[in-house]
Formats: sequence, structure tokens, C-alpha cells
Amino acid sequence: MARRPRLHEFRLIEQLRRSFGRTGPAVVRGIGDDAAVVAPPKGRQLVLTTDLLIEGVHFDLRTASVEDVGYKAAIANLSDIAAMGARPEQALVSVALPPSCTVPHVLRLYKGIMNACRPHRVALIGGDTSASPRGLFLSLTVTGSIPAGTALRRDGARVGDLLYVTGTLGDSLAGLRLLSRRGQGAGPLKASERRFLIDRHRRPIAQVRLGQTLSALRLASAAIDLSDGLSGDLRHLCEQSRVGAEIDEAALPFSPALRAYARSSQADPVAFALQGGEDYELLFTVHPAKQRMLQRTARRAGRRVTRIGVIRPKAFGLLIRETTGLLRRLPATSYVHFHHAPSE
Amino acid sequence: MARRPRLHEFRLIEQLRRSFGRTGPAVVRGIGDDAAVVAPPKGRQLVLTTDLLIEGVHFDLRTASVEDVGYKAAIANLSDIAAMGARPEQALVSVALPPSCTVPHVLRLYKGIMNACRPHRVALIGGDTSASPRGLFLSLTVTGSIPAGTALRRDGARVGDLLYVTGTLGDSLAGLRLLSRRGQGAGPLKASERRFLIDRHRRPIAQVRLGQTLSALRLASAAIDLSDGLSGDLRHLCEQSRVGAEIDEAALPFSPALRAYARSSQADPVAFALQGGEDYELLFTVHPAKQRMLQRTARRAGRRVTRIGVIRPKAFGLLIRETTGLLRRLPATSYVHFHHAPSE
Repeated sequence: MARRPRLHEFRLIEQLRRSFGRTGPAVVRGIGDDAAVVAPPKGRQLVLTTDLLIEGVHFDLRTASVEDVGYKAAIANLSDIAAMGARPEQALVSVALPPSCTVPHVLRLYKGIMNACRPHRVALIGGDTSASPRGLFLSLTVTGSIPAGTALRRDGARVGDLLYVTGTLGDSLAGLRLLSRRGQGAGPLKASERRFLIDRHRRPIAQVRLGQTLSALRLASAAIDLSDGLSGDLRHLCEQSRVGAEIDEAALPFSPALRAYARSSQADPVAFALQGGEDYELLFTVHPAKQRMLQRTARRAGRRVTRIGVIRPKAFGLLIRETTGLLRRLPATSYVHFHHAPSE
Repeated sequence: MARRPRLHEFRLIEQLRRSFGRTGPAVVRGIGDDAAVVAPPKGRQLVLTTDLLIEGVHFDLRTASVEDVGYKAAIANLSDIAAMGARPEQALVSVALPPSCTVPHVLRLYKGIMNACRPHRVALIGGDTSASPRGLFLSLTVTGSIPAGTALRRDGARVGDLLYVTGTLGDSLAGLRLLSRRGQGAGPLKASERRFLIDRHRRPIAQVRLGQTLSALRLASAAIDLSDGLSGDLRHLCEQSRVGAEIDEAALPFSPALRAYARSSQADPVAFALQGGEDYELLFTVHPAKQRMLQRTARRAGRRVTRIGVIRPKAFGLLIRETTGLLRRLPATSYVHFHHAPSE
């Protein structure tokens, strides 16, 4: 439907409010006023994050549905909240719609957003809509809360701390490759492996519960979420903490599906871990004395955590120990979402 | 500068943090982490609003500098906070930059944003940056706070309440016309009048202090800010309050400059008030018993407030009484930012 900028905006917002605006007791005033009003959770600090998702930069509607785009926009924000160790609370959604976008498209976009938010009881409390002369633009802001002084920051890593990641790395990029058919003809892959990788790309999970546990038990000295690939995100964490790091290549956790994909396409799974974005796992540092407690906690939470290296002094730089024992520099390039590939 | 999406993003954010990231004691963690952390003001509720500004929809870089765009994006949000009667606190700024955008452009954009924020001590605490394949996109989120239960809502207007506006109406649209030269050749206008109107368009003021006074003294039963023109914004207020309204054309407050502009271009100033957007004045309703207290309060604050009509039952509709005494329906069209004009 071709939309004039403000035309029907009010009616659309009314429909969004009815469909997705159900809120909890913390929301004093949700969608429909000049601004939303919420009650801050007692005795807690507020956490705020925002992410832009832009057609042609962060997603391609040939490999993602509008529902996927909404889902992943929400996960990008929820993952930031998780990396602070906070509990997500509310979301504001702004969207600029190109002329090709119809009302059902918009409703599917919000459906994707709310599918990501609902498990965490995140309420949609406001936003803005507009026409876009070209391309879909999405801007989400998500709030969270955390007991005062317990937020997991990027700047707390100390020399000697151990580096951990949750889950497995590189799956999302392999899934994207399969979706964009670059991986086709690269050899056989079981249907279940293919499904697993594509699902990891289209429906990633934000590590919200584990993040809260890490902060509540003060298990992590620093944390960041893996949105741009291990190489770039480790660099951010180390720059903020003014330290270096050594990664053990042999320790990097890969899913059986990624190993199969890498074999079948003659690719190096390590490159997928280092430069593959959108895994939304957590990268965090742990004082050596807290290792056993971390392992016990992760087991209880049913979450895999893997020690992949150690924090070194700043002068050491960022190095990766290859399986041969040689140390090489971590590549400086970062994930450029859908349209760039790490060298295979 | 042609930018690859994530290239230099980290360095740009570092520069923005250094230039604009000075924060107060409420900000526990500002720009540079996965999310910002702030201490909620004690005993107050939180107010959250977000606005999109899109090149080719909300602004035109032929009639606005990037600094103007930044300034007005911030004012749009601050005005929403003002319309809730709240005190603005923090801002998150997301911006998508077209290939033509250079780092100095970005810094000027932020300078504009901070020029609007600084008088209200609003701290820049985070955001996101990205490449845009085409056109500048700006998404701001501003937080505020307010004593519990005192927010000025859109849904509180009651039949018999009096309708008030702050300041004068229609100036911003006249300023835009002058900037886009549509008004040229329409007759002589004093340089001071021309400057006044253009300034009202390029550097509008958000009624933050007056909004807080209206809520603190419980003077207003409902409020909305005038961003889309009196006609559209009154409609929103009346729909939310389930009431009608009668506007008195003769009472609408116009600046001498707008009257001069209207005379010289043979335009109707009433059309400018009804359909001209971006005035960022407040439209609010007041119980008749509180009229004198309002007038006294406004005088003390040095702010002009004008009674322009009265709230009627819903079945009455939205009518305007012409100077002839005839009642006509308010036009349903709303302001469509820079590229549409009300009929003159």
C-alpha cells in the first residue's frame, strides 16, 4: 500500500496497540499518548539500549521475512540487555515503511518483535511510524533493570581472568550462507543440520537468563554479547578494559552442524567464529577462583559455557593460538552483516 | 566520506562520547557499553518517548542544515516530554548516514541535538550508528521523570473544560515557506519579521518548564504538544478523551510576523494554525474553576497562554466558529512536514 507519510498513522497505531500493546502493572500509560509512563522497579537501576536495523545494510528481504527482521531487531536489543546482566522490561519500536509495505507486512513485523519479547515479558509501550522514501528502517529501544551496582560492564576484565563464551559460535553465518545459497553445491548436508543452522540465523536466542545469573552471582568480571563476531567483540571488551587476550583456537565451541557445513564447503570453522556475527552468545571473563562455581551454575541452568582463552596485558595484543601451537594476530575485520563474507 | 557499515563505527562513537558524552551523577554508565545504566530518580515515574526523522519525509537538506535537523529531532522528543508535564533526563541517538555524509556532518548533527538538550541538562547516554544506502535517518529516544500520578495525559479532557494553547500558532510553517522561497514575491516583509518566522521554524522551543508547572499544580486535565497542527493534534486529544470540541477562530493567537506574512501572501493565518506543524506549543484543557490560577501562573512564568475554545460532548464533533459566527467542521487533514502545504 502506498502510504502518504502521516495518513492513517493514527489508525495504524491504534491497531498496533490493540494487537500488541498488552502491558503489565509496571506500565502506567502505554501506546497512545505523547510518551509512555512506567513505574521504575524498586531499588533497581535502569538499563537502556537501542539498535538500528536497515534494509540493505543489516538485512536483505530476499533472505529474511519481515517477521524475521522484527524478531532479530528485538533479539539484538535483548542480547545487549543480557550482556549487562539485566532483566528486560519495555520496548519502544520505531519503523519507517517503504511504499511497497502494506499493513499486513507491518503487523507481521510487530509479530516478529513480540515473539522475541514475549518470553521475557517485555511490554511494547510506544514508538513512532513513518513513511520511508526507500527501504525499511527499524529502530528499537529496550529498557531493562538491575540491582544497583551489579551491571556487567565491558571494562572489568583483569589480566589472568579466563575468557568464556556461551553456546556455539559461527552457526548464524553458516545459516545465512545456506539461505543465500552460497553454500549450495558445496557438498551434502543433512536436512537436520541445514535446519539447525538456518534456525540459528533466523531465530537466535538472547542469553537473558544466564546474563542475569552471571551478574547476580558476580561470576563475570566483564561481558559483551557476540553480535559482530568474536574478533570484533573481543576487541571492544579488551579496549574498554585496557587489556590484551589470548584465544585458544582448539577450544572454540562448534556445533556438529557447523563442522559438517565447514567440511562440506571446505571452509574453516574458525573464520566463522571470529568473523561471523549475530550469534548473540555472551563473551565474558571470569576470575580463576570462580571457575568451578561458574561450571556448576551453567550446568544447573542447562547452558553450555566454554573456556576459550585468557586475558593478557595490553602490550600482548589480541592473539590466537593455532592448533599447531603458533600464535597469530586476531583479524581486525568485523562482521558486516549480510553482504560481506569472511575469507574461506 | 563513503563509509562501509561498521568500519570506524567504534572510532566515531569514541569521538561522540568525548565530544558530547559528558553526563551527570544519574548516569552510572554512558556511551561505550552494551547498554547505558542510569539511576532512576527517587519516588518518580519514568517517561519514555521516541521520534523518527527521515530525509525526504520530515526534512529536506535544501531548507535545513544537519545541525537544524539534529536540533529539531531533539525538540520533537523534548516537546513530547513537556506535553506529559515531565522533566527530561537522558537521550539515546541512533543515526543512519548516507554515503555523502562525512564525520564533520555527523558532529554538526550531534551539536544540534546537544544544543537542544543542554538547556534541560539532558545527558546523551547511548545510541547506534549505521550506514544508510540512501538518505539520513535519525531516531531519538528521550527519557524523563515525573512524580507518580501527575503525568498530563491525552485522555483527561472533560466536557466544559476550556481549551488553551501556549505561545502563537502557525509561525513555523510560515518560516518554512520563507526558507523554501514559496513566499517570495508575495509582497514585502520586514527583515525582523522574516527572521522571527524562520527562527521559529529552525529553532523552536519545547515548553518543558510550563509543562512541568501545569502538571505539578494540576492545572491541566489533558495535554498534547502541537507537532502536526492544531487540527490533527486536537483530534488526537479528543479521540483519546472521547469528547468533541469547539474552537473560536477569533481567539487563535498569531504573532505580528505571521499576520504580516499572511497579509503579504494573501494567505489565511487560520489555515496556518490548523494545519501548520512543528510549532511545539502545548494544547491543553483546564477546568473552568482553575482559569484564574492558570492565568496567574502563566504570567509569573512569563509565558503567553490563550483560551481558544471549549470541550463539547463527543456527538458535537470538532467544529470551529468563524468570525462570522458560523460553525464549520475542522479539516481532517494533518500536517505533512515539509512537502505539503495547507490550502491558502
